[in-house]
Amino acid sequence: MEFDPYVTRVNSKLDFYLANPGSLAQIMRYSVLAGGKRFRPILAYCTANLFDTDLDKVDSSCCAIEFIHAYSLIHDDLPAMDDDDIRHNQPSCHKRFDEAQAILAGDGLQALAFEVLVNDSLLDSQTKIELLSVLTHAAFEMAEGQAIDLSIVNQSVDICLLETMHKKKTGALLSCAVDLGATIAQCSQADRLILQSFSQAIGLAYQIQDDVLDVEAPVGILGKNQHSDRDKNKPTYPSIIGLSESKDAYQQLYKAASDALKLLSVDAGDLQLLIKKLQIRTF
Amino acid sequence: MEFDPYVTRVNSKLDFYLANPGSLAQIMRYSVLAGGKRFRPILAYCTANLFDTDLDKVDSSCCAIEFIHAYSLIHDDLPAMDDDDIRHNQPSCHKRFDEAQAILAGDGLQALAFEVLVNDSLLDSQTKIELLSVLTHAAFEMAEGQAIDLSIVNQSVDICLLETMHKKKTGALLSCAVDLGATIAQCSQADRLILQSFSQAIGLAYQIQDDVLDVEAPVGILGKNQHSDRDKNKPTYPSIIGLSESKDAYQQLYKAASDALKLLSVDAGDLQLLIKKLQIRTF
Repeated sequence: MEFDPYVTRVNSKLDFYLANPGSLAQIMRYSVLAGGKRFRPILAYCTANLFDTDLDKVDSSCCAIEFIHAYSLIHDDLPAMDDDDIRHNQPSCHKRFDEAQAILAGDGLQALAFEVLVNDSLLDSQTKIELLSVLTHAAFEMAEGQAIDLSIVNQSVDICLLETMHKKKTGALLSCAVDLGATIAQCSQADRLILQSFSQAIGLAYQIQDDVLDVEAPVGILGKNQHSDRDKNKPTYPSIIGLSESKDAYQQLYKAASDALKLLSVDAGDLQLLIKKLQIRTF
Repeated sequence: MEFDPYVTRVNSKLDFYLANPGSLAQIMRYSVLAGGKRFRPILAYCTANLFDTDLDKVDSSCCAIEFIHAYSLIHDDLPAMDDDDIRHNQPSCHKRFDEAQAILAGDGLQALAFEVLVNDSLLDSQTKIELLSVLTHAAFEMAEGQAIDLSIVNQSVDICLLETMHKKKTGALLSCAVDLGATIAQCSQADRLILQSFSQAIGLAYQIQDDVLDVEAPVGILGKNQHSDRDKNKPTYPSIIGLSESKDAYQQLYKAASDALKLLSVDAGDLQLLIKKLQIRTF
């Protein structure tokens, strides 16, 4: 598809940063290079590209955010957390290795995420600090969101708490991806706010859609076990507001995201295309 | 003792950074503020202070390194890792809360460590990037060291691998503390190399001494279970080279550290005093 060049690009950079020998690096490679949609890097590349940014300057941010995402998946899959045995159609990290190595691989990936950004020789210090400010905050929010997620298992929660949880757990890192691209592009403050509206809308839409797909998509397509949320008694959008209302909700959010992009000072072609792809995704 | 003002100082800053409400912050507070010798902050403050540095500029580094240390203890204590139930004379994090919350509190602390450094308004961007380069690398090495540590349980290893493990698992962060202080102090390259010799020597000495204390000190003093290494069949310096040889080894390393400091362009008073305190520590 149209975003394949970005996926290929970030995969080759991820491979490069994980070339370090050592048993921990091997475990990190297993999880990071197993696959994944690379949605966060695509968001960062697309955003930066709207403003004709040199994409070489975006590579480290894309790898950093993917490392944070990958570490969160490794830790989320642990028996003490979501206890998922399959990830990207292969045994999850703690099943292939063991729990201790999975915890450490996650820990190492978080450190590596910040390290690759800190050491990018193509960016000046001021830009790197701006990027790191965004990324460290999003990484912290993500952990907070996961803590809320675990605390509401078997609980009756209102839609407001569910939304707060998703905004932190998933939304923070998706918004961060757009913010990183915008920061490197040095776009105007107005464009930045528009991009934030866009990213917040698609972040929530993406999560509601995930909840819907968790009910509807077959395991072979999803790459993980179906009904995993329902089986764990986690509150979801379908369980609180209903399935068809959830579908309406995420489609409305995608539309709001698309409308926001029309206000940008540049043509948002690639990001509009991305919304269209997301609206019809089946996994 | 002489270093109490540094301990008081960093404790108050740690408390400040952990004032954020939310359940995850509460768990982080429980583990970080429970106690601890604050050895790494003391090293950073003492190093910076040799060169008459404004200590306000060192606070964020001291908190960052203590957050990294605290997260590593939380994760190390997990059942899948060292399975320790007591830490700082109180239930370890996963015993007081649960495993999932302990994993996330550790994850959050690592993110917060980098976040406080990134957002320190007293430091310029270039300095912050230098500090972050040192700290992210040490954090990664620490995770690698812990992975080696777990891989050699029940194994017969040579002293060389044991040393490599300790250099990464414990030494990297101790050296980092000195490096952070030296970076903020903007001392000469020669002084920096001397301080690196010092920190590498005390880092290894400290660990060999820990192995010895693990055999000899009673649990009330140690703040954790005695014989924890031996019970887990972990190779240690006493188990490989003998108890009295281990004592000789760490005392020689402390002496080498002291000798190195005499080459500094400034008086190393506080660091020499620190070595003396370390040589006679009982926990």
